[in-house]
Amino acid sequence: MPFRELSQIQELNRLFLKNLEHCILATEPRGLYEPIEYILAIGGKRVRPLLALLAARMFGDGAESPAGLPVALAVEVFHNFTLLHDDVMDDSPLRRGQPTVHEKWDVNTAILSGDLMLIKSYDLLTRLPFPERLPELMKTFNRVATGVCEGQQYDVDFERRNDVTIEEYLKMIELKTAVLLGGALEMGALAAGADRADADHLYAFGRLTGLAFQLHDDLLDTFGDGARTGKLTGNDIIRNKKTFLYIKAVEGLAPAEREEMIEWFSHSPEDPAPKVARVTELMRLRDIPKLVSEMRDNFQTEAYAHLDAVKGDPVWKENLRVVADTLLRRDN
Amino acid sequence: MPFRELSQIQELNRLFLKNLEHCILATEPRGLYEPIEYILAIGGKRVRPLLALLAARMFGDGAESPAGLPVALAVEVFHNFTLLHDDVMDDSPLRRGQPTVHEKWDVNTAILSGDLMLIKSYDLLTRLPFPERLPELMKTFNRVATGVCEGQQYDVDFERRNDVTIEEYLKMIELKTAVLLGGALEMGALAAGADRADADHLYAFGRLTGLAFQLHDDLLDTFGDGARTGKLTGNDIIRNKKTFLYIKAVEGLAPAEREEMIEWFSHSPEDPAPKVARVTELMRLRDIPKLVSEMRDNFQTEAYAHLDAVKGDPVWKENLRVVADTLLRRDN
Repeated sequence: MPFRELSQIQELNRLFLKNLEHCILATEPRGLYEPIEYILAIGGKRVRPLLALLAARMFGDGAESPAGLPVALAVEVFHNFTLLHDDVMDDSPLRRGQPTVHEKWDVNTAILSGDLMLIKSYDLLTRLPFPERLPELMKTFNRVATGVCEGQQYDVDFERRNDVTIEEYLKMIELKTAVLLGGALEMGALAAGADRADADHLYAFGRLTGLAFQLHDDLLDTFGDGARTGKLTGNDIIRNKKTFLYIKAVEGLAPAEREEMIEWFSHSPEDPAPKVARVTELMRLRDIPKLVSEMRDNFQTEAYAHLDAVKGDPVWKENLRVVADTLLRRDN
Repeated sequence: MPFRELSQIQELNRLFLKNLEHCILATEPRGLYEPIEYILAIGGKRVRPLLALLAARMFGDGAESPAGLPVALAVEVFHNFTLLHDDVMDDSPLRRGQPTVHEKWDVNTAILSGDLMLIKSYDLLTRLPFPERLPELMKTFNRVATGVCEGQQYDVDFERRNDVTIEEYLKMIELKTAVLLGGALEMGALAAGADRADADHLYAFGRLTGLAFQLHDDLLDTFGDGARTGKLTGNDIIRNKKTFLYIKAVEGLAPAEREEMIEWFSHSPEDPAPKVARVTELMRLRDIPKLVSEMRDNFQTEAYAHLDAVKGDPVWKENLRVVADTLLRRDN
């Protein structure tokens, strides 16, 4: 990453973290606010707030990010609310290597403090110094938040189905992850006074980057180099997770191989190595690495075309491109 | 209830119900929207939306309630979201005589569709025909919604404590029930263009009416005539619910009786009749019916003083008084 971009991005990230710490002022009752402080403190990449801040800067938001900051905080608190409730629904024991809220406290605490985080995300949005821009921002926020809930429901529905199509699956990951990336950019730009056309281009840039990122992430899980990614290769296969790769493979395989694939995904053998090896082989047979990386690259190209079309400060446009490139790095 | 008021109130209620039916337009995925339609359809008294509509009419809102309706819908959807999540947290099997959402579907469905209802309540608020009033409305909505969550947490905390003071208990019921009644009125008035002073008086009127109603409800549960209330008298005592009556009695009893009271509230005997009889006797000994009904009447008097101070259309002010009177009817 070039030095100028790196330092500007780090500066925005520091500004965000400094403000995140104090963004929720009330502290009583402790049983409600302590879990919120906990989940907001345990980290994450803070990509969404960074996108919001960069989009606002692109349209002249000042050095202290007066317009971008309320959006960045709202988006990050909203994102953490979804993680908190998703962890309850999936009964996940860990989040970012730490005990989840429902494990550290209990399910009721996780439900109620999650609810309050959702309310606080709207509350943060209203700190915008230009109240006349709030109605437009609210529409985007509501549209995006609704999409995220719908995406979560489709994800649950799809786990029980064996006939999910590629189109349905793409729609699900779009709602579940891509729209919030797009929404962070759209809202950051609108908060700083961007027009509708630029806000739409930035939304599309974020949405398509999100889709590219999801396919990239799925590819790395199965075909990545574990030594470079730092993750267990084949984890999705071991967990019978029906990713884009699986659905695309099942869709295109000959009947016998398709049956075999479905069969592998209905068991969890004690030694997963032969399963991972054979499923990976079947995917290669169907040319999945090439097909999916081409789709990813198409999304990425389309995303950058939208970014190019935005009429914003080229310095901050370049920073945004650097962040997107980082998300899609081959060894990410 | 006088005929004119009755017919005007019924007309508003019809208008509200007609609009409630179609207020959430999306229908897919069904697993997410079906529970929302279900809980919104199973009824309730619809007091909060009525308060919002009446407050808006008082400041000249038109016959179709263009300003009051988005607030009324937002408040009712928000209220039902709290019921949905509260039922999960309390593991209640029934709501208004029907199976709760987590019973009819499952806990995850109840969490996620509740989350979406909270988002939809903000979405409904943005349908206000005067977007310039939205920032002010949002502030009230966020303040009230935060209070409701805090009230719920205090309620949970207090169940585990034996040293809850009267002040703490009043604060809890204020947050848990009274602020939303006040908020419905404040937001209805603001949506129709009322000034801050009138909005504040209406909030105070709703908050104090809510406190009076809660004390009234607690009194009827223990000292009401079951034949007139249609409820089992002594239900709170049987369930060891530490209501205002209990805390006030424990606070004022002599040591021996206080010990006895605490003892009664730590068991659930198979035949509850002797327990109900003795606890009621101890409460009468402490003069609870008189003390609490005086407090209720003081709240009510204070509430009406705030209503009197409002500069609004007297016809609709009178309607609002009629609704409050109905809530506090002695055989309610």
